[in-house]
Amino acid sequence: MAKSELFGKDLICSQDWRRPELDEILELAKKMKEKRFSPEYTSLLKDRTFFMFFYNPSVRTRQSFECAATELGGHAQFLEPKTMRLKTAKSAGETTEDAAKVMSRYACGLGIRILEDKISAYGQGDALLREYAKYASIPVVSMAHDKFHPCQGLADIMGIEEHLGEDLKGKKILITWAHGALARSLCSVQEAALLASRYGMDVTIAHPEGYDLDAEVMDVVGKNCAENGAKFEITNDVKEGYRGAHVVYSRNWMSPNAYHGGEFHKQEEIEKALRYTDWICDAEKMKLSENALFTHPMPIDRGHEVTDEVASGPRSIIYDVAENRLHVQKAIMALTMSEKLNK
Amino acid sequence: MAKSELFGKDLICSQDWRRPELDEILELAKKMKEKRFSPEYTSLLKDRTFFMFFYNPSVRTRQSFECAATELGGHAQFLEPKTMRLKTAKSAGETTEDAAKVMSRYACGLGIRILEDKISAYGQGDALLREYAKYASIPVVSMAHDKFHPCQGLADIMGIEEHLGEDLKGKKILITWAHGALARSLCSVQEAALLASRYGMDVTIAHPEGYDLDAEVMDVVGKNCAENGAKFEITNDVKEGYRGAHVVYSRNWMSPNAYHGGEFHKQEEIEKALRYTDWICDAEKMKLSENALFTHPMPIDRGHEVTDEVASGPRSIIYDVAENRLHVQKAIMALTMSEKLNK
Amino acid sequence: MAKSELFGKDLICSQDWRRPELDEILELAKKMKEKRFSPEYTSLLKDRTFFMFFYNPSVRTRQSFECAATELGGHAQFLEPKTMRLKTAKSAGETTEDAAKVMSRYACGLGIRILEDKISAYGQGDALLREYAKYASIPVVSMAHDKFHPCQGLADIMGIEEHLGEDLKGKKILITWAHGALARSLCSVQEAALLASRYGMDVTIAHPEGYDLDAEVMDVVGKNCAENGAKFEITNDVKEGYRGAHVVYSRNWMSPNAYHGGEFHKQEEIEKALRYTDWICDAEKMKLSENALFTHPMPIDRGHEVTDEVASGPRSIIYDVAENRLHVQKAIMALTMSEKLNK
Repeated sequence: MAKSELFGKDLICSQDWRRPELDEILELAKKMKEKRFSPEYTSLLKDRTFFMFFYNPSVRTRQSFECAATELGGHAQFLEPKTMRLKTAKSAGETTEDAAKVMSRYACGLGIRILEDKISAYGQGDALLREYAKYASIPVVSMAHDKFHPCQGLADIMGIEEHLGEDLKGKKILITWAHGALARSLCSVQEAALLASRYGMDVTIAHPEGYDLDAEVMDVVGKNCAENGAKFEITNDVKEGYRGAHVVYSRNWMSPNAYHGGEFHKQEEIEKALRYTDWICDAEKMKLSENALFTHPMPIDRGHEVTDEVASGPRSIIYDVAENRLHVQKAIMALTMSEKLNK
Repeated sequence: MAKSELFGKDLICSQDWRRPELDEILELAKKMKEKRFSPEYTSLLKDRTFFMFFYNPSVRTRQSFECAATELGGHAQFLEPKTMRLKTAKSAGETTEDAAKVMSRYACGLGIRILEDKISAYGQGDALLREYAKYASIPVVSMAHDKFHPCQGLADIMGIEEHLGEDLKGKKILITWAHGALARSLCSVQEAALLASRYGMDVTIAHPEGYDLDAEVMDVVGKNCAENGAKFEITNDVKEGYRGAHVVYSRNWMSPNAYHGGEFHKQEEIEKALRYTDWICDAEKMKLSENALFTHPMPIDRGHEVTDEVASGPRSIIYDVAENRLHVQKAIMALTMSEKLNK
Repeated sequence: MAKSELFGKDLICSQDWRRPELDEILELAKKMKEKRFSPEYTSLLKDRTFFMFFYNPSVRTRQSFECAATELGGHAQFLEPKTMRLKTAKSAGETTEDAAKVMSRYACGLGIRILEDKISAYGQGDALLREYAKYASIPVVSMAHDKFHPCQGLADIMGIEEHLGEDLKGKKILITWAHGALARSLCSVQEAALLASRYGMDVTIAHPEGYDLDAEVMDVVGKNCAENGAKFEITNDVKEGYRGAHVVYSRNWMSPNAYHGGEFHKQEEIEKALRYTDWICDAEKMKLSENALFTHPMPIDRGHEVTDEVASGPRSIIYDVAENRLHVQKAIMALTMSEKLNK
C-alpha cells in the first residue's frame, strides 16, 4: 500500500481530522472487510502491543479492539486503570505524564475508554484523553469517552454507505433520544451527528425538552451541514423528525443535569428518563419515514429504545454496523500505528 | 489433513456427538500431543479470536483454553460477563440473541463456563449454552456448565486410553462421590460416566443416599452400557464399587437439594458433605481394586476427596489427564473452528 | 545465537546467579534494544505461553512482561490467583505442588508477583516463589516479591551502564529512603543494592533510624563490595550520602515494623513515613553529588520521593530504566525459556 500520512496521529474526535483522512480510514476498512485475513493485513502490527485502558467496562469495544489487534498480527493488552494507581479526575497516583511517557516506550498505541461514573463533570474524560495525547509519543485513540466516540461514528457511516451508497447528500438521518434504563453517555450520538454532517447528510436531532446535547458540538454540526448545503434541525417533537428520514438512530442519553455536586446521578437520570414512554422507535413511527434503515451502536435496551419488531426487522442494520467496528478499528490502528505502512 | 465434517459444530455435551466424531477429536489430540508445536498445527487458527466467557472463574480451564488458542496461532479473549451487562438467569441486560449475533461477526468460536452460584436452579446453565448456540453462527463449546463438561470427559478418556490401551471393553471405572469442602458441580462426573459408557467400560457410580446424579443422565449412561454389552451399577456402599475396578475417579459433588428457594446453598452443602468422613479414596480401598489407576479432574481437595498417598502415588494419572485438557481442546477448536481444515 | 546454559533456570534473586550469567542477560538485552523487532528474536517463544501470577496488581510489570512475551512471538496470560483457589500464606486451596506441576505441562515459564498485603510476614513471598520453583519443571521468575525484584535490578544496571559506561568500578550509588504515601516493599531497593555491589559500585544506603533494610541482604551487599574492593556504607544522615554520588536512587520503603500481629499495617506506616519531610531528593541535595544521575523504579510518588525538578530534569534516567524492563525481561525469557536458543 502507499505511504500514509496518518502515522502517529491521535483520534479523539472525528472533527479533529480532515475529510480525506476520514475517507482513507473508510476505504481501507472496506477493503479489510472484503479480504479480512489477507496476508496484506495480518502482519501490519506483528508482535506489537496496543494498550487498552478501560476506566469503564465494555461489551463491544473490548471485543472489537482486541480482535482488531489480533487480526493485524499484534496483541491488545486489557488494562484496568483502577488497579494501576493512575491519576484520574477522581483519584491520586502516578501522573499522566509519567504513565504516557513510559507506555510510549512499550506500545504502538493507546486506547482509552472513560465514561459516566468515572468522571465528576461532563468534559473531564475528553480532557484526560487530550492530556494523554499531549505526553504520549504514540497515537491515542478514543474507545468512547464522555464527549466523542469516533470509532462508533465511522462504523455508523460505513454501514450507512454500505446500504445507501457512498453519496449521502440529500439523505436524511434522524438521531432521536429514547427512554431507557441506562442513562447513557452522549458520545455515540454526538459523534454520529458530527460524521453524518461531515458526509453531507441532512441531520435532525429529536429529544424531549431538557435533553439537549452539547451546544458547542451542535454548533459544529450546524456548520458542517451549512458547508455541505444540508439541512440541520433540532426538534422536541417525538414524531416530526421521522418524516423523510432515510436513517433512524434511536438511543437513550443522559440529561445535562446528570452531573451535579461533583457526582454522576445515575438513578435519578434513569427514573426521569423512564417517564417518557412515548420516546421509543416503533413500526408506527417508522412508517412516517422514507423506508428508513434502523441503526443503533448496541448494546440495545430493547423495549425502551426500540421495539423488537424494528430492531430485528428487515431494515435494521445493527449487526452490520457492529461488525464494522472491527474493520474501522483495524484500519485506524493500521494507518496510525503500523510502521510498515509508513516506510 | 483431510476435510473434517466437524466444522461449525457446537460441543455442549459429548452425548450430542456421534462416536466417530468423538474418535476424530481423540485421534487428533493424540497427534497434537506427540508433535505439539508442529507447523501443521500452529497456524490452524492464525489471527483468529476465540471468546471465553467466564461466568465463574476457573484455574485449569482458563489456562488450558487460552494456551490452546495460542498454540493454534490464535488468541483467546478472557471475558467476564459480569462486567458486560449480558442477560443471565439472574440478571437483565443485552439479549443473548444480540450478543451471540455480534460475537459471530468477530470470533471463530465461543466458550462458556457457568456453574454453581451463577444459576438459581440446576439446568439453567445448560439452557443458557443452548440459547447461545441457537443464535450464534460460530461453534459454542462448554468450558464446564452445571450439567456437562465435555472437554474434561474427553481428557479423561484420552488419559485412560494412554494407560490402559484403546480397547476399554471389559475395563471397569468406579466413579465415587467423596466428602469435601467445595460443593462441586455434577458436570465432570456426569460427563465422565457418559463417555466411559460410550467407550465400552463397565460403570459403577457410588455415593451416599441423597447424592443422586441427574436421573436423565443416568438413564443415558445405562443405555450406553446396554448398547455396548457393558455393566452399569449404582451403589450406596462406600467400598463395594472398588472391587474389580481398573480406574477409580473420586470426587465431591453437591446434592440435588443444593438449589432451593431460587438459590445455591453452598455452606449448607459443605456442612452436610463433611459428615461423610468415610467417603475418601485411600490406599486401603484401592487394594480392593484391580490395581486401579486413580484419576480426578483437578483441582483436588486433598485429604477429603483422596489421600496424598493415592493422589501422588504411582497409579495416579492426574497430571497426564490435566495435560490432556490442552490437547483435547486444541483438537476441538481446530476441527470445529479452523477454516483451513475445511477447505 | 550460541547455545545458552541458562535454559530452565529460575530467577528469584540476582544473587542466586553467577556474574557471567547476569552479563549474558544484559548483553542480549542491549542487542534486543538495538534491533527490537529483528526476526532473530521475534519467534524465540513463538506460540508459547508464559503465565503471569499477579497476587498484587501492577502498572509497569504487567505492561512490560506482557509486551515482552508478545515481542518474542508468544503470549503472556494474565492470571489473578485470588480467583483461582490457590494456596497462599493467607488462604487454603489447591496445593502449590499440584498447581506447579500442571502449569509445567502448559507453559514455558511462570512469573509471580506477591507483595505487601498479600503476605502476613516479611519473607513469605520469597518462600512461596521458592516453593513454586521446587515443584515446577519450568523457570519461575520473580515479577517483584517481598524480598527481591531481579528484573528491576537488571534494568537499573543496564540504564546506569548506558549513561556511565560499562565499567562501574569507582562509581558511587546512593540508595536513599524517601518519605511518601505508599509504604513500599523493600524488593526494588534491595535488588538495586545487590546488583550495584555485584557490578563494582561503591554503595551507600541512607535512611532514618528505624528503616533498616533486611540485615542478611545488607551482609551480602557488604561481601559483594569487599570482593570488588568497593566501599559500602549505611548512614542515617539525610545529606551525607549525596557527596560523591554518581547515581542517586531515592525511594520510599516500609519499616521492619510494617508486619506485626500477622498483618500488614499500611496506614500506620504511611503516617509514620510522612513525618520525615526532609527525606526527599531535591535539587539542593543533588548539588552535593558528582552531577549524579537520578533513577527510580517508577511509578514515582512525586513531591514525596523526589521533586519534579529532579525527576524531570536533564540527569533523570527514569524513562530509560523503565524501558529497559522490557528488554531485560525479553532477554531473561528468551535465555531461560526458549528451546530455540538451546537446540
